[in-house]
Amino acid sequence: MQDKLSKAGVLTIDLGAMADNYRQFQKVVGADCAVAGVVKADAYGTGLKPVVETLTKLDCPQFFVATLDEAIQLRAINDKTPVAVLGGLYHGAEKEYQARGIWPVLNSPEDIQRWGQLAREMNQALPAILHIDTGMNRLGLSAGESKMVMQSPDLLEGISVQILMSHFASADSQTHPQTQAQADAFAEIMTGFAAPKKSLANSSGTYRNSDYHYDMVRPGYALYGGNPTPETDNPVKPVVSLSARILQIRDVGKGETIGYSATHEFDDDAVCATVGLGYADGFLRSGSSRKTDSGPEAATLFWQGQPCPIVGRVSMDLVSVDLTNINGPRPVAGDSLEILGPHQGVDDLAEAMGTIGYEILTSLGARYAREYV
Amino acid sequence: MQDKLSKAGVLTIDLGAMADNYRQFQKVVGADCAVAGVVKADAYGTGLKPVVETLTKLDCPQFFVATLDEAIQLRAINDKTPVAVLGGLYHGAEKEYQARGIWPVLNSPEDIQRWGQLAREMNQALPAILHIDTGMNRLGLSAGESKMVMQSPDLLEGISVQILMSHFASADSQTHPQTQAQADAFAEIMTGFAAPKKSLANSSGTYRNSDYHYDMVRPGYALYGGNPTPETDNPVKPVVSLSARILQIRDVGKGETIGYSATHEFDDDAVCATVGLGYADGFLRSGSSRKTDSGPEAATLFWQGQPCPIVGRVSMDLVSVDLTNINGPRPVAGDSLEILGPHQGVDDLAEAMGTIGYEILTSLGARYAREYV
Repeated sequence: MQDKLSKAGVLTIDLGAMADNYRQFQKVVGADCAVAGVVKADAYGTGLKPVVETLTKLDCPQFFVATLDEAIQLRAINDKTPVAVLGGLYHGAEKEYQARGIWPVLNSPEDIQRWGQLAREMNQALPAILHIDTGMNRLGLSAGESKMVMQSPDLLEGISVQILMSHFASADSQTHPQTQAQADAFAEIMTGFAAPKKSLANSSGTYRNSDYHYDMVRPGYALYGGNPTPETDNPVKPVVSLSARILQIRDVGKGETIGYSATHEFDDDAVCATVGLGYADGFLRSGSSRKTDSGPEAATLFWQGQPCPIVGRVSMDLVSVDLTNINGPRPVAGDSLEILGPHQGVDDLAEAMGTIGYEILTSLGARYAREYV
Repeated sequence: MQDKLSKAGVLTIDLGAMADNYRQFQKVVGADCAVAGVVKADAYGTGLKPVVETLTKLDCPQFFVATLDEAIQLRAINDKTPVAVLGGLYHGAEKEYQARGIWPVLNSPEDIQRWGQLAREMNQALPAILHIDTGMNRLGLSAGESKMVMQSPDLLEGISVQILMSHFASADSQTHPQTQAQADAFAEIMTGFAAPKKSLANSSGTYRNSDYHYDMVRPGYALYGGNPTPETDNPVKPVVSLSARILQIRDVGKGETIGYSATHEFDDDAVCATVGLGYADGFLRSGSSRKTDSGPEAATLFWQGQPCPIVGRVSMDLVSVDLTNINGPRPVAGDSLEILGPHQGVDDLAEAMGTIGYEILTSLGARYAREYV
């Protein structure tokens, strides 16, 4: 049986659009700068295998993942292109990186020590990426640790540093002063390290300033259609579409309530649809309807371009939407509503749910029928 | 290589505790009432196969899932026990239910019409569950539709109604008046229908009033350790434990910031740990630290029973926690912190994230090493 018949939602991933977005990055940075593919978190929820296969065909020269396990999965798809683990050198698994040709991103003196020790034990130069923290305070050598490593080159003995990298914390904001401060810190500290390549910019950083491009940019979010420049129109193409079927149409009377805890009461008679997706499908519970002084009052689905607001709480497997104000023929049970598509992008839905599009993407659930086009 | 070495988190599912919770329900309702297993959404994130196998050994007489696809998956694990699809009779897949021995929960006159038509075409009585809505306005026959069906018994011709059911909207509250109103409506409407069994109570409803038990209760959440009676101690055992490894320990200076958008500034020097889980693992972004007038200011992880609050924003693959106030030896890189376990249950973490434990469970990510005990 077709997945579309047995599942309540259909998730469509447009690999052609994703490829176009990759090419768009290459165009923005020019021929002298490499464009890596950040494919962590199952390629931001879109599927590691099809995405890696697509990027491999585009000669993507470098992949980044978050965990060692993701790198091992990637190696089963592509055993040639370098892949680096942003989460660092997992304790107790050091030899696995070497055996599988996986690069650790060395985030701390302790990571450096363990990788260098393995290199010396094996009497073999081992490749790695060196991560300098420039103010995010999440992963990477602090300023003090960077100086210590500079002054003790023995620490890096046996390690073949391929790339010196740092990571922006606030590049999604056009005006946040942290971005230039991080770039300045990176420019200063890089003078102390020998590395053939430097890399600083994520999706947003790439669009902020060509000075941030260096030898390699590392887009993730924008490859999958997220807007890297939220203050302006999205320069990349949408990749993800999502629809879900209506299980039932209901007439609801004035004064009645709907959903768990009866949080939404109807001021007038209404027509509602019960739709087969919920928070177990990554449609976050924060999309429930609510009373607010400002901001969105509910997430919204769409019927032929017309908004159908969520009424009541998002349940595990279901949401209810209000169809009362639909112009023209209303949908019937068995029809599907748009969750992501031409009328609502990942950034739009994220705003209605009080989060960011990244969380929308990585929450995309396992119960949808998946189609790759 | 062991999953534990290549993955950043370890999710442990205690099937023994889950079995005890099932037995506890049987004890609460007594021998004359059946205890169904609600195993939708991958058994609330805990894993369909091991849970169904465990409940099958306990002679669970009925399973409930949300989607047809889940029922098909269940049939591959257990091809005997009745399984019902709460989402109803999927359009275009009617014959699949019959062919695979899957019961639809008939939620609407339109569901009834299609199932009855198939029965008459096949000249075969087809089993189903009839769902009466008693005020939740989500799925099920409205009061008016119920009357219509009662007055037109032809509609049900060919359909062998096994169970008459309804569903509570507010039973997690001890005092919400909707629960008794729904029970009253159910008691009234059932007199018009012939069905060998009646079923009303979910996990919470089972604990509210033995009058709600009827012939079958349908626990979901509490099987997996969630508290069905939030106003009092949890009567069931925890099932889910989760830990994640520390990737790096950082000294952070007074006045510095941490994480995306630099939302958290340190009033004093601090020691932080960067931990390998994030919203892509179902650790919701709403667990980020924030300034609030009331309520929790951040989600919390635990080190040997001591709280380590999240500082800054939850990232896709990482969170930062503050270790400054830990008494005794602090953890080191490679150690793991508790996310769910003896010091924090699913309901506790949910509260810190502004949601309910159900969403915590169903968001449990795919990147953890999974252990069943």
